[in-house]
Amino acid sequence: MAFDFDTALPLLRRTPGVLRELLGGLPEPWIVQTEGPDTWNAFDVVGHLIHGERTDWMPRVEHILTHGEDVPFPPFDRFAQFDASRGRSLSELLDTFAAARADSLARLEELRLSPADLERRGSHPEFGPVTLRQHLSTWVLHDLDHLMQISRAMAQLYGDAVGPWRRYLRIVNAGRGRSGVPD
Amino acid sequence: MAFDFDTALPLLRRTPGVLRELLGGLPEPWIVQTEGPDTWNAFDVVGHLIHGERTDWMPRVEHILTHGEDVPFPPFDRFAQFDASRGRSLSELLDTFAAARADSLARLEELRLSPADLERRGSHPEFGPVTLRQHLSTWVLHDLDHLMQISRAMAQLYGDAVGPWRRYLRIVNAGRGRSGVPD
Repeated sequence: MAFDFDTALPLLRRTPGVLRELLGGLPEPWIVQTEGPDTWNAFDVVGHLIHGERTDWMPRVEHILTHGEDVPFPPFDRFAQFDASRGRSLSELLDTFAAARADSLARLEELRLSPADLERRGSHPEFGPVTLRQHLSTWVLHDLDHLMQISRAMAQLYGDAVGPWRRYLRIVNAGRGRSGVPD
Repeated sequence: MAFDFDTALPLLRRTPGVLRELLGGLPEPWIVQTEGPDTWNAFDVVGHLIHGERTDWMPRVEHILTHGEDVPFPPFDRFAQFDASRGRSLSELLDTFAAARADSLARLEELRLSPADLERRGSHPEFGPVTLRQHLSTWVLHDLDHLMQISRAMAQLYGDAVGPWRRYLRIVNAGRGRSGVPD
C-alpha cells in the first residue's frame, strides 16, 4: 500500500499515547531492561524518538522542500539521546515526546502537501535519492519498529522466569516460535 | 529476574489500555494487515488474547491450585478466535478484552497467593511440570509477545512504501537491521 495521509496520520498521532499508556509509571525494572550489551532500553528509545522529532522527521521534510536533491540531509545522530536524556525522568521524556510530536504534525498539516509534493525528491547521505513519500512512510514504520523494540527489550526481564515456555515465546527466543504458528 | 506481583501486575493491567490507544479507531488497513499467509492481523490477536483470559491464564492458575500435577492442563486452542471473533468489531473485542482482563486480575488478587503458592506445580500437556510462577511470568511475556506481533503485522502495510529505508527497519526486514546498531 502506498503512503496516504488518511491512513498514516492516525498512527503518528497515537504513538505518544501508546507509549504513555505502556510505560508511564511502570516499575523501573521494565524501563531499564535491554536486549543485551549495546542495545537500548525503553528509556533510551523514548529519547531517540524525541531526537527524531527535532532533527529528522519534519526537518527533512522541510529540507526536501527547500533544497530538493541539491543538498543531502545532515546525517542523523542515532546516539544523541544518551547525552540528551541524562538526568531526566521517563515521565518528562514522555511529555517532551508528546509535545514534539504534536508540534511536528501541526507543521506537517500546515504545509498542505499535494500528491505531487509527495513525489519530490531529496538526497539521503548514504543511499541517495529518496522521495518525500518514502520519508513519511519511514516515519510511520519507525514508530512501529521502536514499539516492537521496546516490547522485546522489556520481555527479556522474564526471559528465564517463564521456564519451559521460553521456546514458544518468539520475543525471548530470537524469532524462533512454534513453527508455522504465529503465536 | 524472578516473577513478583509488584513488577508484573502493572504490566498486565496496562495491556488493554495500550491496545485501545494503539488500535481503537485506527484505519482498517492497519487492522487487517498480516505478516503473510497463515499469520495473524491485529484483529486476530485481540481475539486470541480474549480466548487466553477465558481458557488459559486464570483457569490454569485455578487448575494448578485444584489438581497440582495430577491432571494436565486442557490444551489451549490457538485458533479459537477465528470463530469467536467472526462478525464482531475490533472496538467490541477491545472492550471484551479489557473486561476479561480486569476480571482475571480481580480473581488473581482474591487468591492472595503466597510465595510458597508460586512454587506449586502443574502439568503442561506438552512439556510436563511447570510452576505457577512460570505460568504467571508467561502471561506477562505473552502480552509483550503479541504487542510485538501486532506492531510487526501492521508495519508490513508500508514495507514497500519506505523504499530504500527498508534495509534499516528491522520490523520489515526479518530482524536484519543496521548491524550492531539497535535502531
